[in-house]
Amino acid sequence: MNAHSPIAESVASATTSALLSVNALAQPLLAALLEQQAELGIAARRDPRGVLIVDAGIEAPGSVAAGAAIAAICMGGLGTVRVRANGGAGAREEWPTVVEIASAQPVLACLASQYAGWSLSASKEETGGKKFFALGSGPARSLACKEPLYEELGYRDVSKRGCLVLEVDRAPPEVVIDKILRDCALEAHELTLILTPTASRAGTTQVVARALEVALHKAHVLGFALGDIVEGSASAPLPPPAREAIEAMGRTNDAILYGGRVHLTVNGNDDAARDLAQRLPSSASRDFGRSFAEIFTEYDYDFYKIDPALFAPAEVWVSSLATGRTWHAGATRFDLLHPLWLGEA
Amino acid sequence: MNAHSPIAESVASATTSALLSVNALAQPLLAALLEQQAELGIAARRDPRGVLIVDAGIEAPGSVAAGAAIAAICMGGLGTVRVRANGGAGAREEWPTVVEIASAQPVLACLASQYAGWSLSASKEETGGKKFFALGSGPARSLACKEPLYEELGYRDVSKRGCLVLEVDRAPPEVVIDKILRDCALEAHELTLILTPTASRAGTTQVVARALEVALHKAHVLGFALGDIVEGSASAPLPPPAREAIEAMGRTNDAILYGGRVHLTVNGNDDAARDLAQRLPSSASRDFGRSFAEIFTEYDYDFYKIDPALFAPAEVWVSSLATGRTWHAGATRFDLLHPLWLGEA
Amino acid sequence: MNAHSPIAESVASATTSALLSVNALAQPLLAALLEQQAELGIAARRDPRGVLIVDAGIEAPGSVAAGAAIAAICMGGLGTVRVRANGGAGAREEWPTVVEIASAQPVLACLASQYAGWSLSASKEETGGKKFFALGSGPARSLACKEPLYEELGYRDVSKRGCLVLEVDRAPPEVVIDKILRDCALEAHELTLILTPTASRAGTTQVVARALEVALHKAHVLGFALGDIVEGSASAPLPPPAREAIEAMGRTNDAILYGGRVHLTVNGNDDAARDLAQRLPSSASRDFGRSFAEIFTEYDYDFYKIDPALFAPAEVWVSSLATGRTWHAGATRFDLLHPLWLGEA
Repeated sequence: MNAHSPIAESVASATTSALLSVNALAQPLLAALLEQQAELGIAARRDPRGVLIVDAGIEAPGSVAAGAAIAAICMGGLGTVRVRANGGAGAREEWPTVVEIASAQPVLACLASQYAGWSLSASKEETGGKKFFALGSGPARSLACKEPLYEELGYRDVSKRGCLVLEVDRAPPEVVIDKILRDCALEAHELTLILTPTASRAGTTQVVARALEVALHKAHVLGFALGDIVEGSASAPLPPPAREAIEAMGRTNDAILYGGRVHLTVNGNDDAARDLAQRLPSSASRDFGRSFAEIFTEYDYDFYKIDPALFAPAEVWVSSLATGRTWHAGATRFDLLHPLWLGEA
Repeated sequence: MNAHSPIAESVASATTSALLSVNALAQPLLAALLEQQAELGIAARRDPRGVLIVDAGIEAPGSVAAGAAIAAICMGGLGTVRVRANGGAGAREEWPTVVEIASAQPVLACLASQYAGWSLSASKEETGGKKFFALGSGPARSLACKEPLYEELGYRDVSKRGCLVLEVDRAPPEVVIDKILRDCALEAHELTLILTPTASRAGTTQVVARALEVALHKAHVLGFALGDIVEGSASAPLPPPAREAIEAMGRTNDAILYGGRVHLTVNGNDDAARDLAQRLPSSASRDFGRSFAEIFTEYDYDFYKIDPALFAPAEVWVSSLATGRTWHAGATRFDLLHPLWLGEA
Repeated sequence: MNAHSPIAESVASATTSALLSVNALAQPLLAALLEQQAELGIAARRDPRGVLIVDAGIEAPGSVAAGAAIAAICMGGLGTVRVRANGGAGAREEWPTVVEIASAQPVLACLASQYAGWSLSASKEETGGKKFFALGSGPARSLACKEPLYEELGYRDVSKRGCLVLEVDRAPPEVVIDKILRDCALEAHELTLILTPTASRAGTTQVVARALEVALHKAHVLGFALGDIVEGSASAPLPPPAREAIEAMGRTNDAILYGGRVHLTVNGNDDAARDLAQRLPSSASRDFGRSFAEIFTEYDYDFYKIDPALFAPAEVWVSSLATGRTWHAGATRFDLLHPLWLGEA
């Protein structure tokens, strides 16, 4: 661990002895998930070599509650995720069901753990069948530290248990599991893979529960000093999953881009906080105002042509600890979500 | 268990090994309730033969928190129940305190367990005193399976512990307890009876916490395929209890009929989902628009003259997994609740 | 314990055997807090004689989540404290982050435990350095019972563990710790002191989480029979801490006085309930309508010149169990809070 990184220092100042282990902290949540398989509609099995595979929406139906529990695991035990019934005008003018996320360690929870940043792929030759691609998210990323982000974070987890979440509709091929085990330095029985297709209830829920992570990621893209972000909470409307993977991806993006709200509390000076508030919301993007599906189609399904600034919650508050002032920017666009999500009576 | 019922199949597909036991799942919640007797204002004692009787509002004062805990037990451990402070316009224009319910197994939680469907009565001759009548709710119903509903559900619980909730203001007579033990095939010490008068804080809370169950019950009455209902959440305003049993019953009904909201997620086709949304809200009833007490009086206190379609939440969302579309129908009527509940300044 | 006090009777009627011990009930919550030191950004150490000192915002950064956990400890395990993301118009027109408090034992939780009523001071001579002053809050107050309030409450805790919360920015001097140990009849290793500066995240959170306590305290000042208050819940907006102690104190007061809401449920007659509702809100004070800082300055920083009737939540509901009627009075003033808390874009 790089003791000179701002995050490392901020984490160190928050701890008395040991570094926070996102994999160790996720273990009790994973144990609770496994104890509730039947209630949550998920199914765990060990693959031939002993890796624990949790099906949360492929053969097993999964559930919203499973998705919320998986999201908390994905945050390395450093965040809370709640699904709740919206009330009053919020239900009528916005959406009846809402996901709420909070963390007292937002950088570790969201970037070191929850962010889907570990690219895992295998060619047809390697799999002996279809090629495979997935972005791994969750605490095991920080055992492997294959992403440049970890150097910036100055964080590397050390744990004899690892857990990775994959948004896929089939188990990864052997060659990919081999790679995960090798990069994480884990024995097969020490690794858990949670599989959640986006077009499943658990999958949609755990993606919408990334509303805070999306804000952290954009703050990083904007060059804001991550070590200065000390509190974060967020909310976003929870739609049912769309039928297909692409549609479902569009829908979860729209939930955050047009229905997400985030409140960050930051150290540093007021100018940096105000600037972050102004640049953070999705409305600061040139692509704001159309559904993800529409934008994606216009750009010929090339994800990398979409303005990266679009990926952010719609409405933002940034509180500065330097003075206690809070800046508010952006606005939700449920007028845009309703025609996409509601059927005609 | 009828392995060919749609519910049985849906439950089976959600489980890896054993069937969900609503009585077994309720046990840890019951243990937690009993550990907090003093905090929650309840009192447990064993009757002479060993049945555990929990007084949650007769001699003991009970509490809102006790009612929420009892509601979760009543859902067989397959649902969450939270009481929360409403904020903003929701507090001012609606009501300051709200009950929220959610379940990833709404049919089992609400119909196999929570629904007050087990008719328990004893004549003057049998009791040697006053005649007794109560509708049993909670997980022990599914041990006895005395209601035709269980055949439709294809569910029968097997458990060496049972728990039944009774909305009564005195303990049931011996002859009724005998019947419960016999029908549930339980020894006396294996049975817990929770007693909550409607006109008590816990009683009112656990009845208002039936907002989701009321929606499930009406969906059943409307002939919607229960096996297709895979997620449910609901909310309703929580008033204080009214003074008397009849008044209190009216008030808890009004809370759901005019202040309740529900969000169901269903399998099947879009037409069935849209049709359910349109027919589900209480506003689809000819008796909608007057307080339960007024309607009850008009029908000469004959419960069975009231239009069964009235018993439903006021506002409804139904999400279809076939396409991801959501239908919205009905509306809350706090303008009707306020004159009933608020005193003049 | 005074068995003839109304509270004592109400508590006694709620219990089957033992009296509720706020110190014993706080212990599991304290243990959970200590297990999460790193996650919550706090740091515990034993002082030379063995008293456990928890730093929740002096050297350690603390967090909002730490503040919520400390607030629940401060309520002697008899209340729930949740921080949540506000949604819809509530977020936009009010504030994005909200604290919610509830208790089924509001008098014991708030007045016997949470209220900051134990005056602890030491002169320069006694400390051998700077003079010290703090108001102790939390369950250990009820071991010492140094305040006249305890006679009215008819409550005295007996426990071999004690926990006190101090809103300070340095550990208390030895002479003050000696006094606490002596008055509480505790050995050094049996006492925990939690230190939370108001101008810290945990400190601001645990003070705003006093919205229900402030209502209970004003009800007491108004002469309302405390034994008649049987349920309580409240909410208030959570701003970031202000930079300095005085500013931070003003800000937490403003959060409750202009953004707080409370719902009390009471025994007794309707007239008393209506009267309580009318007199309880902060708007019933002559000092209502200006920020705490402005008022404090006008009164030459003399806290005791401020109208005591100002210290109350802004909006109030009182439900009477005698008839089930609810009275509503007061109103929040976010128009006043926004200019104080929001920076210009």
